[in-house]
Amino acid sequence: MAHISLPDESLPGIVGLFAFRPETHGPLNLLAETLLRGESPLTGGERELIASHVSHLNNCHFCHTSHGAAAMAHLDCDISLLDDIKQNFRQIEISSKLRALLNIAAKVQVSGKEVREEDIAAARAEGANDQEIHDTVLIAAAFCMFNRYVDGLATWAPQNNEDYREMGQRMAFTGYVRYADATPQD
Amino acid sequence: MAHISLPDESLPGIVGLFAFRPETHGPLNLLAETLLRGESPLTGGERELIASHVSHLNNCHFCHTSHGAAAMAHLDCDISLLDDIKQNFRQIEISSKLRALLNIAAKVQVSGKEVREEDIAAARAEGANDQEIHDTVLIAAAFCMFNRYVDGLATWAPQNNEDYREMGQRMAFTGYVRYADATPQD
Repeated sequence: MAHISLPDESLPGIVGLFAFRPETHGPLNLLAETLLRGESPLTGGERELIASHVSHLNNCHFCHTSHGAAAMAHLDCDISLLDDIKQNFRQIEISSKLRALLNIAAKVQVSGKEVREEDIAAARAEGANDQEIHDTVLIAAAFCMFNRYVDGLATWAPQNNEDYREMGQRMAFTGYVRYADATPQD
Repeated sequence: MAHISLPDESLPGIVGLFAFRPETHGPLNLLAETLLRGESPLTGGERELIASHVSHLNNCHFCHTSHGAAAMAHLDCDISLLDDIKQNFRQIEISSKLRALLNIAAKVQVSGKEVREEDIAAARAEGANDQEIHDTVLIAAAFCMFNRYVDGLATWAPQNNEDYREMGQRMAFTGYVRYADATPQD
């Protein structure tokens, strides 16, 4: 049971909160769309991996699994990715640049002040530019918001990885604004 | 020095980041405007106190002081408020409902999962309704983003409380969207 009365208890995670408060639904979705599907030197798959990894570090099952499923859709890979994200990417091959950016994201998850000059220098040494560093920090920071929103109001989430497959495809290819707008009519 | 090259190093905190990445500036400002000045059962002053308190807990000087100054403008009180926010509100008289909501905000600052049934029940016992609880959780969560964005990229911030007085008035009364749009021309 969520901490507040939601209009449709069948809607999982943040989707139920969108239905409760339409005024904040729009700005939050626009932010997700801009960060994860807008113009960026990072691919959609890379950005969803950052989002999912930070969500795992924040112990947010709904965001970890749904954004992991979106990464899976972008990267056209197996559902084992969802567990691999929890294991800090032992199976999937990721670039050394992305690994350095994921390290920065993990520091942001703890606190902005945890990001040190040497973390930035390590990412630059792997070829990361200012915009990639910026987008990594902001995506990681944004998921520290989304995760707290979803869990701070005790929303429910499907437990099985398979239940997120279609959601991930829609997040990746339909997008956050259009997907969320369509949800109440599904 | 910020971790990335900003177009105008004289712009403090998040304002310098807005100039670096106009694509994310708009959605972030729209979110701040909606959360802090949009329709809500919480007053603008109450919402800015929540924002400033969470920012202090995240050790983010720029957000603590600027949003504290916005609260000061809304509540028409003395600049000593900025230090009082750090002391968990010993001087300013706040309602027992707001104190219970600030307790929830402080839990959210640690993790969404830290918010317990008893925290919600305590706020309800002081008269808080679902929308007030929702808005408190989302504002607290959003400042866990804004704080990490500002500090994760090592932006600079004025140190003196007095330097935030005018900024706070503009945040409170001009608003986030109009203030930010006007800033580059100032």
